[in-house]
Order: sequence, then structure tokens, then C-alpha cells
Amino acid sequence: MKLRQLSTAAADFAAEFERLRHWSAETDAAIEDRVAEILADVQRRGDAAVLAYTQRFDRLAADSVAALEITQAELQAALASITPAQRDALQAAAERVRAYHERQLEACGLSWSYRDEDGNLLGQKVTPLDRVGLYVPGGKAAYPSSVLMNAIPAHVAGVQEIVMVVPTPDGVRNPLVLAAAAVAGVHRVFTIGGAQAVAALAFGTATIPRVDKITGPGNAYVASAKKHVFGQVGIDMIAGPSEILVIADGTTPPDWVAMDLFSQAEHDELAQSILLSPDAAYLDAVRASMERLLPTLPREAVVRASLEGRGALILTRSMEEACEISNAIAPEHLEISAAEPQRWEPLLRHAGAIFLGAYTSESLGDYCAGPNHVLPTAGTARFSSPLGVYDFQKRSSLIEVSAEGAQGLGRIASVLAHGEGLQAHARAAELRLR
Amino acid sequence: MKLRQLSTAAADFAAEFERLRHWSAETDAAIEDRVAEILADVQRRGDAAVLAYTQRFDRLAADSVAALEITQAELQAALASITPAQRDALQAAAERVRAYHERQLEACGLSWSYRDEDGNLLGQKVTPLDRVGLYVPGGKAAYPSSVLMNAIPAHVAGVQEIVMVVPTPDGVRNPLVLAAAAVAGVHRVFTIGGAQAVAALAFGTATIPRVDKITGPGNAYVASAKKHVFGQVGIDMIAGPSEILVIADGTTPPDWVAMDLFSQAEHDELAQSILLSPDAAYLDAVRASMERLLPTLPREAVVRASLEGRGALILTRSMEEACEISNAIAPEHLEISAAEPQRWEPLLRHAGAIFLGAYTSESLGDYCAGPNHVLPTAGTARFSSPLGVYDFQKRSSLIEVSAEGAQGLGRIASVLAHGEGLQAHARAAELRLR
Repeated sequence: MKLRQLSTAAADFAAEFERLRHWSAETDAAIEDRVAEILADVQRRGDAAVLAYTQRFDRLAADSVAALEITQAELQAALASITPAQRDALQAAAERVRAYHERQLEACGLSWSYRDEDGNLLGQKVTPLDRVGLYVPGGKAAYPSSVLMNAIPAHVAGVQEIVMVVPTPDGVRNPLVLAAAAVAGVHRVFTIGGAQAVAALAFGTATIPRVDKITGPGNAYVASAKKHVFGQVGIDMIAGPSEILVIADGTTPPDWVAMDLFSQAEHDELAQSILLSPDAAYLDAVRASMERLLPTLPREAVVRASLEGRGALILTRSMEEACEISNAIAPEHLEISAAEPQRWEPLLRHAGAIFLGAYTSESLGDYCAGPNHVLPTAGTARFSSPLGVYDFQKRSSLIEVSAEGAQGLGRIASVLAHGEGLQAHARAAELRLR
Repeated sequence: MKLRQLSTAAADFAAEFERLRHWSAETDAAIEDRVAEILADVQRRGDAAVLAYTQRFDRLAADSVAALEITQAELQAALASITPAQRDALQAAAERVRAYHERQLEACGLSWSYRDEDGNLLGQKVTPLDRVGLYVPGGKAAYPSSVLMNAIPAHVAGVQEIVMVVPTPDGVRNPLVLAAAAVAGVHRVFTIGGAQAVAALAFGTATIPRVDKITGPGNAYVASAKKHVFGQVGIDMIAGPSEILVIADGTTPPDWVAMDLFSQAEHDELAQSILLSPDAAYLDAVRASMERLLPTLPREAVVRASLEGRGALILTRSMEEACEISNAIAPEHLEISAAEPQRWEPLLRHAGAIFLGAYTSESLGDYCAGPNHVLPTAGTARFSSPLGVYDFQKRSSLIEVSAEGAQGLGRIASVLAHGEGLQAHARAAELRLR
């Protein structure tokens, strides 16, 4: 395996590091144009357009959009059809994800207000979105865990209606995905996908209700469509390829770290797995584990392509330097696989999720630890956050000025409004003066 | 004044209401193309491109981007140059805005964690963005209050560097804007604007540091540029025309409500002012106040164009129905001008800011009540929130699984990962099983 190895002490490190970080979310103009057409068509023709695209792209023979809806009975049947072990695992994962997001609601999702010394009430009212849309990809990247991770925070936030769309090319339905929808309490499911599904959710059709926000991953068409409708509805984020960065002090069994790097690389050829350590012998040991374990993986080809294309082992001068490099990358998943993870945690400023200690494999977080697995990619952890209850809520400021309060505030507002040349603003304040 | 009046009891109300709500954020393809060119040019040529556009569009004769920077001494000089009343008002407003946002930080901006029954630590670490960019328009819409409303929450969040850009066509600087930057503690100010300023902040140049997020309003070029760079950096929102909706029970002096409607209409011809009341005589009284007061306004022409183009008085069957209509509009500013505002507040689900009671004129909120005046427009209050401390923070999930915890979680993750065909995920979990 041609896995590149860098050293921060090398003269060419800065250039090599820049090359490693480079990833371009370049949009394909042909896709953009096609998506713009589909959006306009669905906005104009509604159900008829959605049906036509679904017949064409997914080869479904339905004669109405209503016929594309999956009933709650069908979701329950899917849940009954999977193995008991799968059902138990889905339900256990859902319960843990729900418990975490309920804590999140209490920590940062409740209304608050106070009165100042003049008796003015100030605060924020926090309310759930009315209705949200959840995009679930079909085909090979159909992940039931994503259904849980998107629908449960919406539920916890108090969203009244969760509408899921999932393409089913050639009519093939994934029972685990439908079972997850049942477990997560999704209200309605339509077997539509692509830009036409995003358009239907954003604009509404006779059959598909308009939503306030669309979350969930998708291919280039879906990503482009979400970017187009942003503003008309809310969207979560435009996800890039998945990434893991492991900072290791050399105390974790090398096989564990090797498998953690693989578990990101197996997502797709553009995924990125990076290991940082100040211990050169440990890097060698992990490399040896990777060479030995790689041929045992069913997805060996994808893992190899990902690691050779975008992976790296990086020898650092110290754990502190490893933390600095991690901050520059702002990875989606960050494992601090060390004997004293809490010692390094304060140094880590930018990451979607931080996994502390040898036992915290990223895959536990992907499925069932509780926190959300929808995380900012491609360095956007510099300014954005995991999907959470807060993404399904919005805030309204509350202001109640007392007769007394209007005196002091009115004089300030009057001066500033005149300064901005907005005389009606000034006079609205002045009218309330005694 | 041809101010339309609707009645919810009229047969054509639904159609009239639909027309009233219609506002299209249609983007001009010529602007989009020009902006794409400017962004690409700044990304490629950096300072040279920024300088060239600034010389050309703003007619500044500077010979380097460094020469476009305004020093802290110049900001302090601007603060010293304004009247004492203006200085006091700016400082009083800043103090109240800061106090409110400090409460907001405590209410929803702190890290949290807990341990579950297996000793696993779960939580979220909340950290400020490193560096943010604040766009401030030049010319007639140059508002010092916007400088306070954008910079203060960033400061309270703990952002280390706030970089402001403000165009100064022909070299004309607005001393109130610069004074506000001094009061708000802006770290660096460059006299650049337009798409080239957004590009400089998003990509960085030799002189202008790259930021993590760009906030602040601007013209069509700025809005288009922000939408383009979204993903590369964070952005706040794409603002549409300003709006006020007043729900009145008839107990507020009509002149007060008339002036509140004017104060939104005076922003620009596309601004929208709507009054809802179940009291027909009160609507007549407010109309009479408006007819009488309109000619006394310096900005009479703008106010008249706005009211005749997009304003409305709406007679409702009840206060409850008025609240429902308000929810359908999801206005930026919502005044509930009633004797018992707290009675109606629970019925109001979607609004940027809710102003309770006759004394709470919207203009007090614009300047100095404390809450932010950067609010979601064009119905986006359905899914988005006022600018706040949370916009200048991001969250990282924290997960520390204990050796014990890895047993139960590992078995769940293994089942689900195999179900998704991700065997490396499964094995990473299985390796931690005893």
C-alpha cells in the first residue's frame, strides 16, 4: 500500500501538508444547469413533474405521486421483517441518541428571559420548526443510522411533521432504512429522490407538503438542489467526503487505530484518514497492522484507493504540535487515542466530534454513543457544528418595554436614528416620551 | 395615499393575501456572472485584484491594500469627532446590547457534558470562531447600529479577531460608523466593499486575513458573493427587504402605530408594513393618522412608495385570527400592540423579534433595547433566528467511552455496521470487545 508518510520536521512539510489538505468542492456546471431545470419544472408543474422524473430516473411505474407514499403499516412491516438482533440494535441506538439529544435540548434549547432594572422584559422564545424534510439516499449509501440521526433530533425539538424522501430505483426498498424510519417516528415517507425530491419538499406539490428545512446527505444533484433552494427553506449543510484524524501517543493497540482509519476510508475513495503521532515506531507499527489487515476487508479496494489517494501518517515533534495540525485541518472526526486524552482535549479547538481515549472508536459514535453522526466536513468545523436539536428550532427575540423604560431607551434611539437619517424611527421613539 | 385594505371575511381574501406576500428574491444572472468573475480574480490575484476593483468602483487612489486600512487611532479620532450626545447614545446602546448578549451566552452558549450509567462521557464543547468578517455597507444605508449589532455578539462569543470592511466611495468616510467600530471593539477595518471585499475575507490575501465567517448586509453584489462563498466560509443570512407586522387590539394611540409602520417603510421602497386588527374603526383611525403624519416626514416619498406598493391594513375576525395570519407571514418584526400582549404571545410561533405592548416601538429594538436587530426576513423566521452569540460559536461533540461502555455499545454498533455493509466499522467496534 502506498500510504504517504510526512514529518513536520521535513523541509517540504508545509507544501506536502497543503497538498494533503487540498480538496475542492468544485461544482459541475452541467449538473448545476440540469438541477436548475428540474427545480423550475417541479415548481411549475408540481406532482406531474415529480412523477415524470421518478418514472424516468428510478424506473418506477406509479401513476400518481400518492402511489409513491409508503404507509405507516409498511414501515411497521419492515420493522417486523428484520432480524431480532437488528431490531434490538436499532432500538437501543435510537434510545441512546434520543437520550443525548434530550440533554442537548435542556442544555441549549429552552426559552429564557429576564427583566432589567427598568422593568423591561428581554429574552428569547425558542420554538420548533413546523415541518421538516429528511433526504435519505438510496442505493449503496443507504444508511439506516442516518435516518435515526436526522429524525430523532427533529422529534426531540418538537417538530410536528417529519417527511422523509428516499429514492427506490427499480422499486428496490431497503428494509433497514424503513425500519429505522418506524423506530425514529418519521411521519410520512415518499419514494422519490434526486433534485426533484428536494424541489418537492422546498416548494410543496399537491401531494407532498412544503417543509421549512431539508436535512440529510445526497449525491451531487441533491447537494446542488439543496444549495439552490437555500433561503426558500433552511438546509443543514453541504457535506463533503468523510474524514478521520487520529492523534495517538502510542499507547493504543496498533490494530485498533488501523481499523479506525479503515472505517473512514471504506466510505468512499475520496474519504480521508490521517494519523498523527510523535512516536515514529508507533507509526511503523500501525502501518504494519494496516498492511496485514487490509487484505481481510471486503471493501479492500475502496479502502486502498482512499488511503493511497488522500491518507497520511504524520510524524510530529510532540503531541502539542499534533493538536495544532489538527486545528489547522478542523477534521470531521477527531480521535485522541492517548493515555490521558483529557490532557490534550483543551488544545483541540476545531472538530466536528472529539473521541477521547483508546476505547472510543469512531464507529461507536457513528451508531450509538448518542451524539449525532452528521458532522461538518472539509474544514467547516471552523465555523459549523454537528446536526442537533438546535437545527430544528428557531428563536424569536422577546422585548417588552415598560412605560418607564421607554423614556431612557427612547432618548438613545432618537439620537442614533437621527444620526442615521431615519426620522420616522426617531419619531416612533419620541412619541412614547412623556 | 393608496394603502390597500383587506378583510379576512372577504371572498377574495386568500388571493389578495397571496399577492401581498409575494416577494421574489430573484437573482440577476448578469450580477451572478460578474460576481463569479470578481471572486475568481481575487482568489487568483489577491491584493492586486482587490486594489484594482477598489480604485475602479470606489475611485480610491490608494497604491496598496495596506493603505486601505483604517488604524485604531483613526477610529478613536472618529469617536472623538462626533457630538457628546451621539457618543453617549452609542455607548449606552453598546452597553445594553452587550448585556443582552452576555445573558444569551449564559442561556445557550456554554459547554456541557454528563456521564451515563456505564461511565461514558458525552457532551458538547462550545468554542468561539477564531476570526470573523463584518461587512458594513457604505453610502446611504451606512448604519452605525449595524456595526454594534454584528460586532458585539462576536466579541461576547470570544472571537479573537473581528475584521470589518466598509466601502468609502470617493474616500468619503462615515464618522458614526467608524465611531461605532471603536465602541464595539472591531480589531481591523479596511475601506473595501462589494464582491471583492467578500472574496478577500473568504479566501484571504497577503494583506487581508481569511476569516471563518462573514456577516452583515449588503447590496445585490454582496449578497450574491456571500451565497457563492458559503461553504468555504460561514455566512449569516441573505437578507431581503425589511418588514413589520403590527397586531393591534385598538388600545394603542393610532399615531404611535402609524409611526411604527412608517419607520419600517422608510428603509426602502420594497420594505413591507402591515397592520392587523379586529377593530375596523381603529384601522380607520390609524389610516387617518398616517394621512396626517406622512407629509411631515423627510423620507415621505420612500414611505409612500413602500406603503402603496407592499403595505396593507387587514381587518380580521379576531385577535386569534390575526395571530394565525402573522404566523403564515413569519414577519421579521412583529409588534403586538395590545393591552394584554402576554395573552397573545403564546399564539405567535414565527417571527424574528416580538415587540410586546404599546411602549415597545420597534425602533427601540433597532437601536438599544438589547436584542439583535439582524433578523430573518421574507418568511425565513419559519426556520431561522436573530443573529446571536451562537452565530459566532461552534460546537464539537465530546465522547469518551469507558472500557465497560465499549462492550454494550460495541455489540450494537457491530450489528448495525454489518447491516450497512461497513465491515471495517463493525470490526473497529469488535476489536474493543473483551
